Amino acid sequence: MKINRNYLRLEDSYLFASIAQKVGEYKAAHPEKDVIRLGIGDVTLPLGAPVVEALGRAVKEMGEAETFRGYGDYEGYAFLRKAIVGYYGEKNVRVDESEVFVSEGAKSDIANILDLFDADNKVLIPDPVYPVYVDTNVMAGREILYMNGHEGNRFLPMPDADTQGDIIYICSPNNPTGAVYSKAQLKAWVDYANERGAVILFDAAYEAFVNDPELPTSIYQIEGAATCAVEICSFSKTAGFTGVRCGYTVVPHALIREGAELNSLWLRRQSTKFNGVSYITQRGAEAVFSQAGRQWVREAVGYYMENARIIADAMEELGVWYCGGKNSPYIWLKCPKAMSSWEYFDYLLNGVNVVGTPGEGFGKNGAGFFRLTAFGDVNQVKEAVRRIKEKN
Amino acid sequence: MKINRNYLRLEDSYLFASIAQKVGEYKAAHPEKDVIRLGIGDVTLPLGAPVVEALGRAVKEMGEAETFRGYGDYEGYAFLRKAIVGYYGEKNVRVDESEVFVSEGAKSDIANILDLFDADNKVLIPDPVYPVYVDTNVMAGREILYMNGHEGNRFLPMPDADTQGDIIYICSPNNPTGAVYSKAQLKAWVDYANERGAVILFDAAYEAFVNDPELPTSIYQIEGAATCAVEICSFSKTAGFTGVRCGYTVVPHALIREGAELNSLWLRRQSTKFNGVSYITQRGAEAVFSQAGRQWVREAVGYYMENARIIADAMEELGVWYCGGKNSPYIWLKCPKAMSSWEYFDYLLNGVNVVGTPGEGFGKNGAGFFRLTAFGDVNQVKEAVRRIKEKN
Repeated sequence: MKINRNYLRLEDSYLFASIAQKVGEYKAAHPEKDVIRLGIGDVTLPLGAPVVEALGRAVKEMGEAETFRGYGDYEGYAFLRKAIVGYYGEKNVRVDESEVFVSEGAKSDIANILDLFDADNKVLIPDPVYPVYVDTNVMAGREILYMNGHEGNRFLPMPDADTQGDIIYICSPNNPTGAVYSKAQLKAWVDYANERGAVILFDAAYEAFVNDPELPTSIYQIEGAATCAVEICSFSKTAGFTGVRCGYTVVPHALIREGAELNSLWLRRQSTKFNGVSYITQRGAEAVFSQAGRQWVREAVGYYMENARIIADAMEELGVWYCGGKNSPYIWLKCPKAMSSWEYFDYLLNGVNVVGTPGEGFGKNGAGFFRLTAFGDVNQVKEAVRRIKEKN
Repeated sequence: MKINRNYLRLEDSYLFASIAQKVGEYKAAHPEKDVIRLGIGDVTLPLGAPVVEALGRAVKEMGEAETFRGYGDYEGYAFLRKAIVGYYGEKNVRVDESEVFVSEGAKSDIANILDLFDADNKVLIPDPVYPVYVDTNVMAGREILYMNGHEGNRFLPMPDADTQGDIIYICSPNNPTGAVYSKAQLKAWVDYANERGAVILFDAAYEAFVNDPELPTSIYQIEGAATCAVEICSFSKTAGFTGVRCGYTVVPHALIREGAELNSLWLRRQSTKFNGVSYITQRGAEAVFSQAGRQWVREAVGYYMENARIIADAMEELGVWYCGGKNSPYIWLKCPKAMSSWEYFDYLLNGVNVVGTPGEGFGKNGAGFFRLTAFGDVNQVKEAVRRIKEKN
C-alpha cells in the first residue's frame, strides 16, 4: 500500500489558526474590548425571503409521496440549468444547458476539475491568490509556476511569452486582492491560452460584485474563450449560500484537447464520482434568479459594497495604497509605515481592536499587504474605520 | 496540455440507457400496458415527518440574522457527528467524533477517498458489484484484480493468499447481489488486510437492511478493523435521502500507512477540496437519529423488506436460485431456463411487463443473473410477482 506522497509535500497553513490564537489571547487579556472582525470571507446577511420560501416549499414536496424526488440528474435539474443559461443571456453570453453543471460548491469544482488533466502539466497560478489552487495541484504532483502580482501591475499579472503554462488560473475579481481584469487584459489571456493549447480555469465567484459595466463578469464575454476556458461560479457570496452549498461550472462543447471534449470528460467525472445536488438546494438556487431573488441579491451586494466603499474611502483619506473595494468585496492594502503583514495585524488588533487577514497567507507576494473584507455589519465597519482613522 | 488519458480507457456503460430504450420502445408499441419497474435502486417513500420538520426549522433559521449559519466545519457539524457516534455506540462500536466525516453522499466519498492513495496500488474489486469502484480506479490508472463472486460462494468471495491487493472493496450487504458477509468471513478479510498492510474500503450503504443480529452492520464490529478499514455510509436508502444528499465516512486514527494517519490525510483532502454539507441537510440528517426518526426508519426499512420478502418467496416457490432479499433490499436471481441476462430482461418486459436489471451490468460474473429491487410500491410488487408466477 502506497499513500499519495504528494500530500506530505503540502505546506501546513497556520494562517487562520494563528489569527484565531492571537485574537483569542487578546480577548482573554482584554475581555472588556469590542473586537471587530474584518477578516472573514464569509457572508453575514441571512438568506433572502424568496430563497427561504423556495427552500421551504421544496422541503414540503419532499415529504409528500406525489412530489417526492429521489436521485436527480448528475449535472443538475433542468429548471436550474435553464435559469443559469438565462443569467448568462443577460450578459450577452450564449451557453447551452448541456454546458452547465450544478454542484455543491465552487470549491469542489475547482478541485475536482483537475481530475480531467494529466499530472504532467505545468500550472500557472497568480501570487497572491486563494490557496486552494496551489494545494490541489500539489496533491496531484503538478509543477506550479507563479505569476507575480505586485503594486506595479496592480496585482493583475499578464501573460509572459517565455512561460509555457498548460493550466492557467484566473480569479477575477481576485480573492484576496479585489483586482478585476479588463476585457483587453482577459483577451490577452484567452489568446495566450488558445495559441498554446492551454486551459484557463476562470474563477468567477465574485462576479456579482462587479459594478462597472466596462469590466467583464464572465470570461465568455471575451472572444475565443469558449475554446480555452472553463468558468466556475458560486451562489455563496451573491446569495449568501456559504452554508447552503451550491455552485456551477460551465464547460463549453467547443473546448477540445487531444481530441476529447472536456464537457464529455467532466460529465463522465460527475456521473461517476458525484450524485447531484440536493433538490431542496436547487430549488433555493433557482429562486435566486427569480425577479424577487434578483432584487434581493442586488440589495445584499449593495449592502456589502457600501461597506467596501466606507473602507476604501478611509484608505484614500489616509493615503494608504490599496486595490479592490470598487468591484469587489475585498480591500487589499499596503501595510503603512513599511510594516510587515503580521506587524500590521498586531497593530490593528492591539491598537484599535480590528481583525484583518495578513496578505502573506495568500502567497509570498502578499508579504507587506493586508486584506480587509466588506462582509461585516455596516455599523461595525463604520466603527472600525473610525478607530483606524483616529489612531493614525 | 495533456488530458487524463485514463478517461479514454473507461468502458461506456450502456446498461441503463439500453434499459430505458427497450422500455420506451415497448411502451410506445403497447401504450395500454401497465409496466412495473423493479429495476430501480432509488427509494420511493417520501421523507419522514421528523426529517421534514427538522429541514423546515433549519430553513427558517437560515432566513433570520440571529440564527443564520455560513460556512460550517469541513468535517460536518458536531451535532451530527455526535449523533453518528451514538449510532455506532448502539452497535457496540467506539468511534471518536474526530473520526467521522460528513459528506454530501457516499458515492462522492467512495470516489474521493482514492485521492489518498498512489496510482501504483493494486485494487481488489468483487465481481459483480456497484460499477463506481471500477470506474473510479480506471480514471486513476490503477491495476484492478477481480474477486469472483458466483453461485458456489453465494457471491461472497474470500481472500486468496496468492493475490496481493492493496486497496480492497467490500460492499456488504452487496449491491447488486444482496449477499451479506458473516462476522467470520469479514474477520478473514480484516486479517488479510492487516497482514499485508492493505486498506479495506467498506461500503455499508445498506447496513440498515440487515435484520439478522448475527450479521455485522459495521466492519468495526470485527476485531482489528480499526487498523485497516475505512467505512462509508449513507442516509440515502435508510432515510430516503437519495435526493437530499448526505453520507458519512469513518477513518480511524489507528489506520496508519507509510507513517501517515489516513484520518489526517482525509481531513486535509476534505478541507482543501470540499466546503462542508448544507446546514439544512445536516439538521435533517440529525433528525434521522432522533427517537421519532429512528422509528420512521424502522418503518420505511420494514416496508421495503416486506417487498423483498414477497419477491424472495416467489423465487422460492418457483424454484429459482437467488441470494439477497433477507437482509438486503436486492434480490439477485439466476435467470431461469439458462436464459442470458438480456433474454430474461426481454422475457419479463414483453411477457409480464416487469422491468428489472440484467446482472451483466455489474460485471462479467453477473451474466446469466438478474437484479430485482424492493424499493417499489407494495401493491405493484405484489402485482409483478403475481404476473411472474402466472406466466411461469
